[in-house]
Amino acid sequence: MAVGKIGMVGLGRMGGNMARRLQRDGAEVVAYNRHIEKAQELAQETGIQAAGTLQELVEKLPAPRVVWLMLPAGAPTAEHIHEILPLLATGDILVNGANAFYGESMTQAKEVEAHGVEYVDAGVSGGVWGLQEGYALMVGGKPEAVAKVEPFLKILAPGPDKGWLHCGPVGSGHFVKMVHNGIEYGMMQALAEGFAILQGKTEFDLDLAAVAEMWRYGSVVRSWLLDLTAATLHKDQVLADIAPIVADSGEGLWTAQAALQQKVPAPVITLALQMRWASQGKDDYAAKLLAMMRNQFGGHAVVQEAK
Amino acid sequence: MAVGKIGMVGLGRMGGNMARRLQRDGAEVVAYNRHIEKAQELAQETGIQAAGTLQELVEKLPAPRVVWLMLPAGAPTAEHIHEILPLLATGDILVNGANAFYGESMTQAKEVEAHGVEYVDAGVSGGVWGLQEGYALMVGGKPEAVAKVEPFLKILAPGPDKGWLHCGPVGSGHFVKMVHNGIEYGMMQALAEGFAILQGKTEFDLDLAAVAEMWRYGSVVRSWLLDLTAATLHKDQVLADIAPIVADSGEGLWTAQAALQQKVPAPVITLALQMRWASQGKDDYAAKLLAMMRNQFGGHAVVQEAK
Amino acid sequence: MAVGKIGMVGLGRMGGNMARRLQRDGAEVVAYNRHIEKAQELAQETGIQAAGTLQELVEKLPAPRVVWLMLPAGAPTAEHIHEILPLLATGDILVNGANAFYGESMTQAKEVEAHGVEYVDAGVSGGVWGLQEGYALMVGGKPEAVAKVEPFLKILAPGPDKGWLHCGPVGSGHFVKMVHNGIEYGMMQALAEGFAILQGKTEFDLDLAAVAEMWRYGSVVRSWLLDLTAATLHKDQVLADIAPIVADSGEGLWTAQAALQQKVPAPVITLALQMRWASQGKDDYAAKLLAMMRNQFGGHAVVQEAK
Amino acid sequence: MAVGKIGMVGLGRMGGNMARRLQRDGAEVVAYNRHIEKAQELAQETGIQAAGTLQELVEKLPAPRVVWLMLPAGAPTAEHIHEILPLLATGDILVNGANAFYGESMTQAKEVEAHGVEYVDAGVSGGVWGLQEGYALMVGGKPEAVAKVEPFLKILAPGPDKGWLHCGPVGSGHFVKMVHNGIEYGMMQALAEGFAILQGKTEFDLDLAAVAEMWRYGSVVRSWLLDLTAATLHKDQVLADIAPIVADSGEGLWTAQAALQQKVPAPVITLALQMRWASQGKDDYAAKLLAMMRNQFGGHAVVQEAK
Repeated sequence: MAVGKIGMVGLGRMGGNMARRLQRDGAEVVAYNRHIEKAQELAQETGIQAAGTLQELVEKLPAPRVVWLMLPAGAPTAEHIHEILPLLATGDILVNGANAFYGESMTQAKEVEAHGVEYVDAGVSGGVWGLQEGYALMVGGKPEAVAKVEPFLKILAPGPDKGWLHCGPVGSGHFVKMVHNGIEYGMMQALAEGFAILQGKTEFDLDLAAVAEMWRYGSVVRSWLLDLTAATLHKDQVLADIAPIVADSGEGLWTAQAALQQKVPAPVITLALQMRWASQGKDDYAAKLLAMMRNQFGGHAVVQEAK
Repeated sequence: MAVGKIGMVGLGRMGGNMARRLQRDGAEVVAYNRHIEKAQELAQETGIQAAGTLQELVEKLPAPRVVWLMLPAGAPTAEHIHEILPLLATGDILVNGANAFYGESMTQAKEVEAHGVEYVDAGVSGGVWGLQEGYALMVGGKPEAVAKVEPFLKILAPGPDKGWLHCGPVGSGHFVKMVHNGIEYGMMQALAEGFAILQGKTEFDLDLAAVAEMWRYGSVVRSWLLDLTAATLHKDQVLADIAPIVADSGEGLWTAQAALQQKVPAPVITLALQMRWASQGKDDYAAKLLAMMRNQFGGHAVVQEAK
Repeated sequence: MAVGKIGMVGLGRMGGNMARRLQRDGAEVVAYNRHIEKAQELAQETGIQAAGTLQELVEKLPAPRVVWLMLPAGAPTAEHIHEILPLLATGDILVNGANAFYGESMTQAKEVEAHGVEYVDAGVSGGVWGLQEGYALMVGGKPEAVAKVEPFLKILAPGPDKGWLHCGPVGSGHFVKMVHNGIEYGMMQALAEGFAILQGKTEFDLDLAAVAEMWRYGSVVRSWLLDLTAATLHKDQVLADIAPIVADSGEGLWTAQAALQQKVPAPVITLALQMRWASQGKDDYAAKLLAMMRNQFGGHAVVQEAK
Repeated sequence: MAVGKIGMVGLGRMGGNMARRLQRDGAEVVAYNRHIEKAQELAQETGIQAAGTLQELVEKLPAPRVVWLMLPAGAPTAEHIHEILPLLATGDILVNGANAFYGESMTQAKEVEAHGVEYVDAGVSGGVWGLQEGYALMVGGKPEAVAKVEPFLKILAPGPDKGWLHCGPVGSGHFVKMVHNGIEYGMMQALAEGFAILQGKTEFDLDLAAVAEMWRYGSVVRSWLLDLTAATLHKDQVLADIAPIVADSGEGLWTAQAALQQKVPAPVITLALQMRWASQGKDDYAAKLLAMMRNQFGGHAVVQEAK
């Protein structure tokens, strides 16, 4: 099936695999990456066309062009937009697939639309598994703009009619993706707490990998996150060499902020984020002060920081 | 395949369907229910044998007997055990499939074993969907006792080699089931909070059923609980006629208690339980007192309870 | 002692008593209120001078003027600032005593300073008890501006050398007040939870007023909030006529937002706010959805909303 | 005033100062300590009588004897009770002042009462400050037993008519003390979070000691815990040498457990405990597993534990 041409800007972990999947399933991908080698390697591997410059990328696409930016949110995305915008023509479509804050996307859209170019925000979920299983795609933008991106969404998604959604106006795609990640924080924390309780019940000497594996079928908690948990526990359930530090990207925070702004209680999502921060030592000052308070009123010993 | 005979005691929502699945897939079920009509109807429908009394049930089973109790935890289960125990012989096996507290099961096991009967605790997950999709089964007991139950576990589970696990000694089955439900509380709360945030973002006018449906494929939060959420949102996403009251059964509480006893922080699971309690009005006294405190220091108006 | 003259704009619950305390202890107060009657009554009662217009208020003050705005944050304060600013002269000082968001105060300060007028933000704590016990005052602004307000701060505070602080630059006063209120939310919630646990222990039939009264002396939790709790429990500890609804003003929210922005975990303060919101029904959608999820997987009954 | 004689068993941080306060204000104290030197030093210092054995202590007291045990809860208290019980006569009174679990005290009371000796449970708050300021005393027991202890309670408390309470039957004293400590956990956490937010606002360069000092007067959060916080911040507000580890004794846990058992939501108290546990590394397994989950789905790097 002739799906048409799409420009992919940014060939990192996400963009690279998305280009592969698009090309594999019938789209013609023109790809650009700041370090041209990545684009050339991908061209060799998959038959996509590598563009040495954004100018070249734009020239290789028929109007109205669909250019998908798959770059880190913030400065990298903004810089590429500023660079490519003057090269695009009225009616072209710029898709921002970054994990961007939806409010920022709404501002960005106005800027892009002022040049006559359409803006579509696309939240992309699927991580390193997306190439194989397809990506969940949450898209915001005007109906006519999204319609032009639709053929590519149908390839990227797990199926032509599933796993992608035109959520609403510009911003709504990144908003839905943000909430998706907030839910993910809460679910992950719930799973981790549960396995920590199992692990602490030493008298039963439970095989956590076997428990996780068993829950994958027929249980109420069966889920993709459980599948991943089982996979990691099969490899190692002692975790002796792993530091107890959980990173966070922006979206858990944005979800907690959105909930506060809307005055919707989201205690579990918020707490899942705060526990990650605690694991990073961000509650150290509070803990030190608590230790000193205890010392003040009860004469309790305080642990001195090792030098 | 000749799987053998099993006695099923209790033909409620869970026990009835488990009997159906067992009989359908090759086991011979002898079923007893306090109200005999249920057993007779099931016999008519499925070809199982109905037993009018526990005595009759025991007589219809070949030694060593496998009797599966599928009754509410607590008194109903205990009463049936007291009634059937004198009818059983050394080497027979009693499976307790209730949502029982694992500590209670461990005590019960000693009582049963004192009669020479083996005790197996089986946590059963799957709810109203188990007949069709199979049940996740978490089993505790001595290896030789569990081995005799195994043929039936292989039928009840989603597959002969998946969805069931001999977790460890007596008590471990109900313990693992308890933690499973604790995780379930946390995951459900995370999902509910996320959809509440989406629902509160009125300017995007999101179709929550469509969002849930889309997330079912390729997203990180895809899960059975999301499948159910999508199903319920497809029917109604306004929920105008539903009271905002979330019931809880014992297992969320037991998980929170186990975490406290082990000194393992489980803030998200615990909070998910506390939010359910808040929805039931169990925090009313605290809220009233807070309203009065605000009134005391700030002269803030207090809402009088409607008479 | 000749303290000098101050203009007080806004004679509500807070401003009225602050004017009383200032006039009582040696300051000369010129007071303005949109509804002139309040100013006239206060003049009659206390000997302050009532001003019929902001123009009159300004004229009755010697340069450099100190004008203290004690109005609701947001529009009312902003409107009065716009009205009075053209009437003021270079070197005059405008004190904003509202419970304002510190970021807004910082913006406002720039606007005021552009007219040559100095801006001081003052967080005021003390509620209805301030007249008698003095107000805690958290002040932000340039040192020379705060110095001119200092004589009045010394009267308003519980003592000339205690209960007031020049915290730092403009904004810092309202920031410190904001965090003060955040802590207040957490402390109140801790107290309320504790008394709810006592109240739930029916077999001990505890006299909660007597417990609160006893804790006021020698205990670790002795505090002003406990004093107020004791006072309210002495009057009524059943609270049958009080609705379990706890209002919130902006500052708990702002504190939670500031913590998120700084990536400082503040789980207890945030949760205290979320529990208030839950008491207001702001978690209803989540609770409804949870009830429906339970219904989906377990066939559990859902409570229908009463019509 | 002739108050009478009391036996004090255990002269640690708490018991020693309580003996001092009793003797100073008119009681005659006979004191026993496993290491006799402590009793002898205290005798030298204060004029109390040192007893070399429990036998000697009992002999030096007139019937009905009042013996106050001020020992660590659990084994130390139980052992001393078993040792002294045979030496006591019907009508004598044993006061357990330990931070004991109220349920354990209720069991212990039955054992003691079986010997004809009365049992009184006394929760004692006040820490290292009690000698000077008096102790808050929460007492459970039969009215006639408590009446005999009352003269000593009036001395130990901050005033004869304040800071002590006969709460109810045996167990109620330790129950009220337990809840007191639970509230303390929540209040401390709220304060610590607030100061952490202030500390994180580096652009205002706030003097946290000055803020704490100012809040001590007129603010809503004024409290003894704030007094202590101010004292510690005056000495050091950087806390560079303090390890971010907050210990917990039993009572926060018992309060959280009591709340769960009563189905009373106590999210803030429970979370304050869980945050202490997190500071102790008790959430490490969960954090490690979360780090691995992130690695699984997103290819995110995991920090290796330093060897």
